Amino acid sequence: MAAQTVATTPTDSATPGAVDLGPAAALSCRECGERFPLGPIFACEACFGPLEVAYDLPVGDPEGLKKRIAEGPANIWRYAPLLPVPADVADHPNINPGFTKLVKADNLARELGVTGGLYVKDDSGNPTHSFKDRVVAIAVEAARAFGFTTLSCSSTGNLAGAVGAAAARAGFRSCVFIPHDLEQGKVVMAAVYGGELVGIEGNYDDVNRFCSELIGDPLGEGWGFVNVNLRPYYGEGSKTLAYEICEQLGWRLPDQIVIPIASGSQLTKIDKGLQELIKLGLVEDRPYRIFGAQAEGCSPVSTAFKAGQDVVRPQKPDTIAKSLAIGNPADGPYVLDIARRTGGAVEDVNDEQVVDAIKLLARTEGIFAETAGGVTVGVTKKLIEAGLLDPTLSTVVLNTGDGLKTLDAVAPTTGPTATIRPSLDAFRAAGLATD
Amino acid sequence: MAAQTVATTPTDSATPGAVDLGPAAALSCRECGERFPLGPIFACEACFGPLEVAYDLPVGDPEGLKKRIAEGPANIWRYAPLLPVPADVADHPNINPGFTKLVKADNLARELGVTGGLYVKDDSGNPTHSFKDRVVAIAVEAARAFGFTTLSCSSTGNLAGAVGAAAARAGFRSCVFIPHDLEQGKVVMAAVYGGELVGIEGNYDDVNRFCSELIGDPLGEGWGFVNVNLRPYYGEGSKTLAYEICEQLGWRLPDQIVIPIASGSQLTKIDKGLQELIKLGLVEDRPYRIFGAQAEGCSPVSTAFKAGQDVVRPQKPDTIAKSLAIGNPADGPYVLDIARRTGGAVEDVNDEQVVDAIKLLARTEGIFAETAGGVTVGVTKKLIEAGLLDPTLSTVVLNTGDGLKTLDAVAPTTGPTATIRPSLDAFRAAGLATD
Repeated sequence: MAAQTVATTPTDSATPGAVDLGPAAALSCRECGERFPLGPIFACEACFGPLEVAYDLPVGDPEGLKKRIAEGPANIWRYAPLLPVPADVADHPNINPGFTKLVKADNLARELGVTGGLYVKDDSGNPTHSFKDRVVAIAVEAARAFGFTTLSCSSTGNLAGAVGAAAARAGFRSCVFIPHDLEQGKVVMAAVYGGELVGIEGNYDDVNRFCSELIGDPLGEGWGFVNVNLRPYYGEGSKTLAYEICEQLGWRLPDQIVIPIASGSQLTKIDKGLQELIKLGLVEDRPYRIFGAQAEGCSPVSTAFKAGQDVVRPQKPDTIAKSLAIGNPADGPYVLDIARRTGGAVEDVNDEQVVDAIKLLARTEGIFAETAGGVTVGVTKKLIEAGLLDPTLSTVVLNTGDGLKTLDAVAPTTGPTATIRPSLDAFRAAGLATD
Repeated sequence: MAAQTVATTPTDSATPGAVDLGPAAALSCRECGERFPLGPIFACEACFGPLEVAYDLPVGDPEGLKKRIAEGPANIWRYAPLLPVPADVADHPNINPGFTKLVKADNLARELGVTGGLYVKDDSGNPTHSFKDRVVAIAVEAARAFGFTTLSCSSTGNLAGAVGAAAARAGFRSCVFIPHDLEQGKVVMAAVYGGELVGIEGNYDDVNRFCSELIGDPLGEGWGFVNVNLRPYYGEGSKTLAYEICEQLGWRLPDQIVIPIASGSQLTKIDKGLQELIKLGLVEDRPYRIFGAQAEGCSPVSTAFKAGQDVVRPQKPDTIAKSLAIGNPADGPYVLDIARRTGGAVEDVNDEQVVDAIKLLARTEGIFAETAGGVTVGVTKKLIEAGLLDPTLSTVVLNTGDGLKTLDAVAPTTGPTATIRPSLDAFRAAGLATD
C-alpha cells in the first residue's frame, strides 16, 4: 500500500523518549527532511512524503563493529546496531530470519558468460521462505515497542505467511486480509499459524482500500499494519540484504546487484544499506551499480527508465510474477534515481523468459526460485546480452522467494522425461540410459 | 530400499588406497564386524548385514576440534573431520545443507507443560527444505570419489528433490524414479532441476524392485543410487543432526530427543553421532534418552516396542505421513535396541493427531512442519501424557521437512476465519475486531 495518508494510532509508549529502538533516533521525511519522534506514523505531516528511520550509527570503529557483528547470531540480529531494534532483540521471541546463503553460482556464470564472479543471494532459506520474513521481523519489534497487540496486513501470498508465522511466535494476535478467491495453497499457508484470516469479496485493490479504512477507524485501534503504519520500520528489514551480501563477500561491495522491483522499497533500502556500510567504514568506498528487474506484464519502472522519464505511470498488472505485481510502485521514482546515479539500469522480461530463467537457475545451481527469482535471473541474462551489465565484474542476483509457492508457473512445462513399465527392457527402449 | 544384495559397480578409483574420504577408514559390517575397503558396496559379503562407515576419528584434542568446527562454514562441512568426505569438501560444488535452526520453543513448552527446556530442530531450513539434503550431500561426495557420473534414487517426494538439486549443482547427471501417479506438485519439484525423471507404472514397491534390477544390470553401470550402493555414506549425513544439536546447545547433550522413524536410519545415526561426540570429548558423557515417533498407520517399530518384542513385523502403510511410510523398516531392530538401552520409548499417533500437532507447532512457534514434524510433536505430547517423557528434562524434537510439501494434510481443516464484503460494517458484524 502506498503511504498516502497520515495515520496515527497513539499508545502510551509512543510518546517521545519512551521508545527504545536502539540506534533509531527519529523518523525523517524523504522529501522535505522534516523529523518526527519515533512512532507508528508513515507520512510526513508537512508534505505527505514517506517517512524513514534516521539513525545515530556507531561510526568511528569499523573493526570493533565487524567483530561485534561476527560474534552475533546467524540471523539479522547480528546487525542490531544498524537496525531500529533494541540491543537485546536477539532475546525476544521472533522468527529470526536472515543470514541466508550467498551461493557462488559458477555453473550459472558459465552459462551466462559471467567471468567476474556471480552470486545468488538465496532468500528462500528464510523461515517462511521469502525475504518478507526480514521486514516483518523488524515490524514485530516496532509493534512491541509501540504497544500494539495485533499484527495485520493485506497480502496475496508471501507477506501473509510471514506475518502469520511471526505473530504466532512473538505472541501477537494476527488478522490478515486477503482476496477471497486466492488459490487454496496460499490460503492454507496464511491460515495454518492460527491467526485470524479474513477473505475480502473483491480484488487486491479492494482489500487495500478496506485496510486503509480500518486504520482510520476505532476498530483498528491497537493494530500494527506491518506495511502501513509500521512501514518505516518494516522497510528497514531490506537493508539486511545489503549487510549480509557485503559481509559474506568478506566486507566487500559487489560491483553489480540485480534486485526485483515490486513497490521498489527493497531496492532503495539495499542502496541505503550499502551507503551506511560505506559511511561506517565497513567496506571500501568505491562505485557499485544497482539494476532493477521487473516482469514485462508489470513494468512501470523499467518503462520509465527506458523512456528516460522521471514519472512512473501506473500499469494494470498481468504477469505470472504475482509477488512483483504492483502497478503503481510507491518507490518507483527513487528506483529510477538510484539506477541512473549508480550507472545501473531497469529491465523487464516476459513470462516465458521468467519460466526459462527459473529452470535455468534450478538446472545450474539446484535452486528452485519463485517467479520473482526468475525475473532477476532472466533480467540479468538480458542485461548481459544488451551490454548493460558487465560480465567481467562481480555480480549478485537476488532470489527473494521459493519455487514451492509458485508451482503453477513451471508446472505446465515440467514433468517426467518418460513414463515406463517397471522393466529393464522398457527402460532400454526409452533410450535414457546412455551417459 | 533394504540392503539385501551385494552390488558392486567397480570403478578405477574404488580400489583401496585410491579413495580419499577424509577420516573414513573402511566399511564395517554392523552384524559381524567384517571390514571392507571403502567402495560402492552396501552389504557384507560374509553375512549380508548392512555396512557402515568406520573412522579414524581425531581423538585427544577436544578444544582444538571445537575451535576448528567453530571456524568452519555454517553448514554440515564444519564437521568434515567427522564425516566420510575429503578435507577440502567445502570447496566442492554441493548444496551445502545443515546448520539449521535449533528453535527454543517456549510457547510450545508452555502448552505441553515442559519445564526443562524444549527445542525444535527445524530442518525445513535446508536447501530443498528437508533433512534429505544432509544425506544426499554426503552421497554426492562418495559418488565423486568413486567416479560415478549419474546420481539416482527411487522416491516419492523429499529425496527426489534433494537428489535433483544436488546433482544439478554438483555437475552430475541425475535419473530419478517415481511412481507414475504422484501428485503434480511433487512431480514438478522432482523435475524442475532438469535431470531425468522417470515415472514407473506401478507403486513405490514396483519402483524399488525396478531399481534393484537396474543396479545389477550393465545399464546401471556408473550410477550411484544414493540410498542403495551409496547407502553407507548417505546414512552418515544424519549424524550431523546430532552434532548440530549438541553444538547449538553449547556442546551439551540434550536429555531427550524425539526422532521420526521411516527406515530407522536417521535415529540410529543420531545415536552414533552422539556416541562419537562423547568419545571425542566434545560433550560430557552422561545419559540421554532417545524416543522414536511413528504414524499409527505405519507403526511396525512402535508396535514391536510396546509388545516388548525384538522382531519388527512389516505393515502395509496407510497414513498421511507419507515420508515415514516404510512398512518394513531396515533399521527397526536397531531402533528398538537404542530406545530400550537409553531408557526412551517408541510411540505412534493417528492422522488426526498428526494434523493437530502440525497446527499446534505452527500456532505456537510459527513453524509450518510437514506431516513427519506433526508425528514427532504429536508423539512428544503423547509421551508426556503417558509419563514416558520427563517434562522437567531438556528435550529436542525434530522437524525433518516442510509443510509446503504436504499441504493436503491440513488443507481440509485450514481456511479463512470469515469471508466478508470490503466494508467496516461487514467486519464489525463478523465479530473479529475484539481483542
